[in-house]
Amino acid sequence: TRNIDLAVVAGDGIGTEVVEQGLAVLEAALAGSDVKVATTEFDLGARRWHATGETLADGDLERIREHDAILLGAIGDPSVPSGVLERGLLLKLRFALDHYVNLRPGKLYPGVKSPLAEPGEVDFVVVREGTEGPYVGNGGSVRTGTPHEIATEVSVNTAFGVERVVRDAFARAQARPRRHLTLVHKHNVLVHAGHLWRRTVEAVNAEFPDVTTDYLHVDAATIFLTTNPSRFDVIVTDNLFGDILTDQAAAITGGIGLAASANINPDRTAPSMFEPVHGSAPDIAGQGKADPTATVLSVSLLLDHLGLTAEAARVEAAVAADLAERGSRVRSTAEVGQDLAARVAD
Amino acid sequence: TRNIDLAVVAGDGIGTEVVEQGLAVLEAALAGSDVKVATTEFDLGARRWHATGETLADGDLERIREHDAILLGAIGDPSVPSGVLERGLLLKLRFALDHYVNLRPGKLYPGVKSPLAEPGEVDFVVVREGTEGPYVGNGGSVRTGTPHEIATEVSVNTAFGVERVVRDAFARAQARPRRHLTLVHKHNVLVHAGHLWRRTVEAVNAEFPDVTTDYLHVDAATIFLTTNPSRFDVIVTDNLFGDILTDQAAAITGGIGLAASANINPDRTAPSMFEPVHGSAPDIAGQGKADPTATVLSVSLLLDHLGLTAEAARVEAAVAADLAERGSRVRSTAEVGQDLAARVAD
Ligand SMILES: CC(C)[C@H](C(=O)O)[C@@H](O)C(=O)O
Ligand SMILES: CC(C)[C@H](C(=O)O)[C@@H](O)C(=O)O
Repeated sequence: TRNIDLAVVAGDGIGTEVVEQGLAVLEAALAGSDVKVATTEFDLGARRWHATGETLADGDLERIREHDAILLGAIGDPSVPSGVLERGLLLKLRFALDHYVNLRPGKLYPGVKSPLAEPGEVDFVVVREGTEGPYVGNGGSVRTGTPHEIATEVSVNTAFGVERVVRDAFARAQARPRRHLTLVHKHNVLVHAGHLWRRTVEAVNAEFPDVTTDYLHVDAATIFLTTNPSRFDVIVTDNLFGDILTDQAAAITGGIGLAASANINPDRTAPSMFEPVHGSAPDIAGQGKADPTATVLSVSLLLDHLGLTAEAARVEAAVAADLAERGSRVRSTAEVGQDLAARVAD
Repeated sequence: TRNIDLAVVAGDGIGTEVVEQGLAVLEAALAGSDVKVATTEFDLGARRWHATGETLADGDLERIREHDAILLGAIGDPSVPSGVLERGLLLKLRFALDHYVNLRPGKLYPGVKSPLAEPGEVDFVVVREGTEGPYVGNGGSVRTGTPHEIATEVSVNTAFGVERVVRDAFARAQARPRRHLTLVHKHNVLVHAGHLWRRTVEAVNAEFPDVTTDYLHVDAATIFLTTNPSRFDVIVTDNLFGDILTDQAAAITGGIGLAASANINPDRTAPSMFEPVHGSAPDIAGQGKADPTATVLSVSLLLDHLGLTAEAARVEAAVAADLAERGSRVRSTAEVGQDLAARVAD
């Protein structure tokens, strides 16, 4: 038997509800196999912060580090000042555990309505850099609150950091039928960071000669995501552009209720983290209204990362089958989770 | 009679073609009035750079400064390294002439097909800050081209700069029927810049108590632009987020062939600049295929800025009428321009 130690950070709002279903589907996927999952729950998020003032204590981080993977629900609550939990917990996990590949599939499953007129076959994946760019927290303000305030945000990009994520993106592109990689940046304005990205893509392309590449400015990329999303195969981009494009991608592929993500440490020096793209949605929390599908698809990415590819495929197939028959039926969070678990068990 | 001195920077690619039609419509709009327009053409862009190495010489800038307004076509050509003309010419004009309000309407005219399933009534305007943010060019790289390269881009935001554009956006919101202002930023990650923007909107709101406000993270804004664009009235945002959102906005309101913009210096210490959002489109340049409508709508914004509101409205009405009857007819750049000029003359 293989034992998997899973750290569970359900977090705030609908996070607990969707994670519960994600875990149920995970269990169903591994039932009857010789893989056993042991979960450890970490009480992190708004409640913990209100109670203790802590976002992510060193001890928690070290204990999380000992796990094989992390399943995260959602972080954030209006009662906590903006940025405290995002920077102090969610981004701290991504940075501390070196999740430099933030993987976000953009796939339109049969049966899912897209707001686009003619969606075509949409099936791309965004490789968003996860440890650099404008997310590094390298900024500040002086004369704060006065008419002379200056606030800065520094995007930090390194050859080391760009190259490793670009190489990962090329490898993913090479493994897909279309073998195409699109770099998205804004190198006509952000010339220093942009040219580093561009040069890196050109250089790493030599190692993957069978992958074709093109380039889009981020503004143009939003146009193509609207008018021709099927043109994309693998997109590689920086942390902030990736944040923006993947929410837009979710909007055209069924909404954030379906958008999964994986924060991957490809070198496996620390556990990777799997989370739905959506937030804690305090407006619908506790009502059983949240769609757990994004979390279940994130569980599929988790299984895949752990090498359990058949189980991963079964979970994705269960979601695909459910979506194909979903129509406009309204089900609770638990009902969707149960239906998905039942399909996986079949 | 009133004399208007117009600086014309036709620029590269389709820039010359669309500007020609824009000027024809401008002439038609003022025919028979006592307003006379004198144009001065400035040879700026790729050709000039290849010939002289200059992007925008000090003398050109000073002469442009003496005009009442600027009509710009498009800047950029693949033969020029990325960033040279954008930073050295287009952004230099915006920064030097203090175009701190980059105004970009997002309006879906009757008859125009949107890729959205149910567009509803889309009629918003983006007030994009034009002189700060990640566009300031405050970045650099060290150990360039080595495995140890570090490239940075600094977003600079000042209370002075944010407040003036926010105040302009509130005034625009107040003058519109819905009186609603949405701030778009990412203050949960870019906490310093984001909180400056947020505090500023809250403070300036006191001067405009009849304007309602809300806030969206930039990633969420891309979702709503897809699923519910009619929720927006006035959007105020920073230079980079504004760049991204306005291309997406163009995509859902008929494409960049229709997207107009105004780079406004509201204090009138220098001429404002009017330009289509699209680029120089070298792939279709010189073929009479470009749609001059975005330029013509920019001419409408120009007339409005000069206080010629009736003429501005006539130009916009001509475009609206043309779009309503356009269907799938294919016309050349000149034909569209002539049709629009004829409608304006009517
Ligand atoms: C909550 C926020 C910090 C986060 C991000 O910006 O990365 C979220 O938007 C996401 O995309 O996972
Ligand atoms: C060409 C480029 C510098 C410019 C910008 O980024 O502002 C363009 O995309 C625009 O939106 O006008």
